[in-house]
Amino acid sequence: MESVNLKKLAKELNLAISTVSRALRDSHEISDKTKERVKALAKKLGFQPNPHASSLRKHKSNTIAVIIPEIENNFFSQVMNGVEAVAGQKRYHVLIYLTHEDYRKEKGYLQSLTNGRVDGLMISVSNTTSDFEHIKACQDAAIPMVLFDRICNAVDVPIITTDDCEVSFKATEHLIKEGCKKIAHLSMSSLLSITSGRKSGYLKAMEKYKTGSEIVLECSPDDIQNRKIIRKLFEENRPDGIFAAVEKFAINTYQVCEEIHISIPEQLKVVSFSNLAAAAFFDPPLSTIVQPAYEIGKRSAEVLFKIIEHKSLFATEKKIVLPSQLIERRSTIQ
Amino acid sequence: MESVNLKKLAKELNLAISTVSRALRDSHEISDKTKERVKALAKKLGFQPNPHASSLRKHKSNTIAVIIPEIENNFFSQVMNGVEAVAGQKRYHVLIYLTHEDYRKEKGYLQSLTNGRVDGLMISVSNTTSDFEHIKACQDAAIPMVLFDRICNAVDVPIITTDDCEVSFKATEHLIKEGCKKIAHLSMSSLLSITSGRKSGYLKAMEKYKTGSEIVLECSPDDIQNRKIIRKLFEENRPDGIFAAVEKFAINTYQVCEEIHISIPEQLKVVSFSNLAAAAFFDPPLSTIVQPAYEIGKRSAEVLFKIIEHKSLFATEKKIVLPSQLIERRSTIQ
Repeated sequence: MESVNLKKLAKELNLAISTVSRALRDSHEISDKTKERVKALAKKLGFQPNPHASSLRKHKSNTIAVIIPEIENNFFSQVMNGVEAVAGQKRYHVLIYLTHEDYRKEKGYLQSLTNGRVDGLMISVSNTTSDFEHIKACQDAAIPMVLFDRICNAVDVPIITTDDCEVSFKATEHLIKEGCKKIAHLSMSSLLSITSGRKSGYLKAMEKYKTGSEIVLECSPDDIQNRKIIRKLFEENRPDGIFAAVEKFAINTYQVCEEIHISIPEQLKVVSFSNLAAAAFFDPPLSTIVQPAYEIGKRSAEVLFKIIEHKSLFATEKKIVLPSQLIERRSTIQ
Repeated sequence: MESVNLKKLAKELNLAISTVSRALRDSHEISDKTKERVKALAKKLGFQPNPHASSLRKHKSNTIAVIIPEIENNFFSQVMNGVEAVAGQKRYHVLIYLTHEDYRKEKGYLQSLTNGRVDGLMISVSNTTSDFEHIKACQDAAIPMVLFDRICNAVDVPIITTDDCEVSFKATEHLIKEGCKKIAHLSMSSLLSITSGRKSGYLKAMEKYKTGSEIVLECSPDDIQNRKIIRKLFEENRPDGIFAAVEKFAINTYQVCEEIHISIPEQLKVVSFSNLAAAAFFDPPLSTIVQPAYEIGKRSAEVLFKIIEHKSLFATEKKIVLPSQLIERRSTIQ
């Protein structure tokens, strides 16, 4: 069986099966040096690569799976629209698996997907995922896979993200230029890749403009808990600017401000990551960082289908970083 | 094979397979008269019902599928939370299929699900679905199934809905009591079950209070198209009240009002179906009809699992109608 041979080559060379497979397919992603090593051993062992039989899967399901943490946030629903646009053209079905930010669910779903139920996977990891063995296991099973938005660098698969650090720098800089002296960053789970990007953009701007002490609060997925955290922040260390890493935290901030009579933007300026169309109709309209969600879905699906169809990826398709957009509205402008 | 016998009995009696199956299981849903007819023929033909082998499916997948039209609307994401809460306890996986309001996609998904991939189905039909043969085909294949929110009465399966007509009456009555003389209803696709419920609630209130001529506008899923429809309404037949059947139409109304300088609630009062938490922070805060979305998901999944587990349903579980809540905010109160 070819898969055994691929496995044997991989073991002998101490490489991932997918690396060996790609090296044999002359993929742009693999260095010439590695390709030479792989091909030399393949020749020695009499292994003949066959590009149309290199998958371990037995049959085509004409289905791809998208594993996402939640759908209440418009970001993921817009991503799905982009995915469906590409999958529809390919006449593929799309299955959505919701992890509800639960690592065990994510692991269970991935395990159930190694059996050939789908031809490919798109994953955005949950905020409780600290171990990536389940993702590596899918990679080892040679299931075509891409990671998007919430990625992990521990696995060598294509990733599609946005410029979290750069746009977070811009958003924080905007608050500083609008006169904020004490800016707090409401942050997500420290396990997430996007958390560190957003946080580092905030920290860089704070450092560049020497804007007092940084305040980074790790918020909760629970609204009630979050409002407590934000109320405590106002009691103990009252900020005049909030940069929220996710829409939910901005809404919680609006709620707390209403409760304790803080007026936006006069006493507090608020900017947040959000893809909600209605942000423009908030009172006051919320300044937002809008991620190119549809584009993320579209590009991720395009890369995934190239892998499914055994096409070589360009080096630029291995790591795609799309720009987000800062939209300034009245919540930050007095 | 038992399935052939069930089929034979059904054909002979001119009943659905599921009716025969339920009659043999002594289900509360089936009348005593039908049960007697079925049992008499089963006895005559020597058919022995076996409650644990009455499914046509060959194996347990420990997976249920939920087929929904979209996820950008918070309603469906909250439904999913309710479904997952029940499925999680049962250690079941949940697959989501998005139809994007496309009948052909819905049909394709249902066809692919008759093969035993899942143990049960929950469906909320698309707004382009005018033919229900694909749903009947799943029923004929004896796949456990429930319909929720957007239902069709052509199929005899349990349905879980809300009191659309009653709460729409209340919302329209609220606009009338707040002084509106000319109320327009922004309606969804006329194919949807919920469209007629919401429309008839509006019409009943208009008739009861003799509030001038009714204006029912069928809106589009497309934002740009919709804003045109609403602008035209204001130019030709300017209303002082809008009752929107879905959140998107209320947001489009807010957009148009901003463009043509109509102030809410002074010149126009707006109430809408919406499960968006942020509606309270709109400018002005939007009066909403909130559906018990989580509860719909939970109850639908509970009924579905009873069918999957071959338990009899109570008559009250065959058609569940849950109450929605009207929340009055500043968009309707001057």
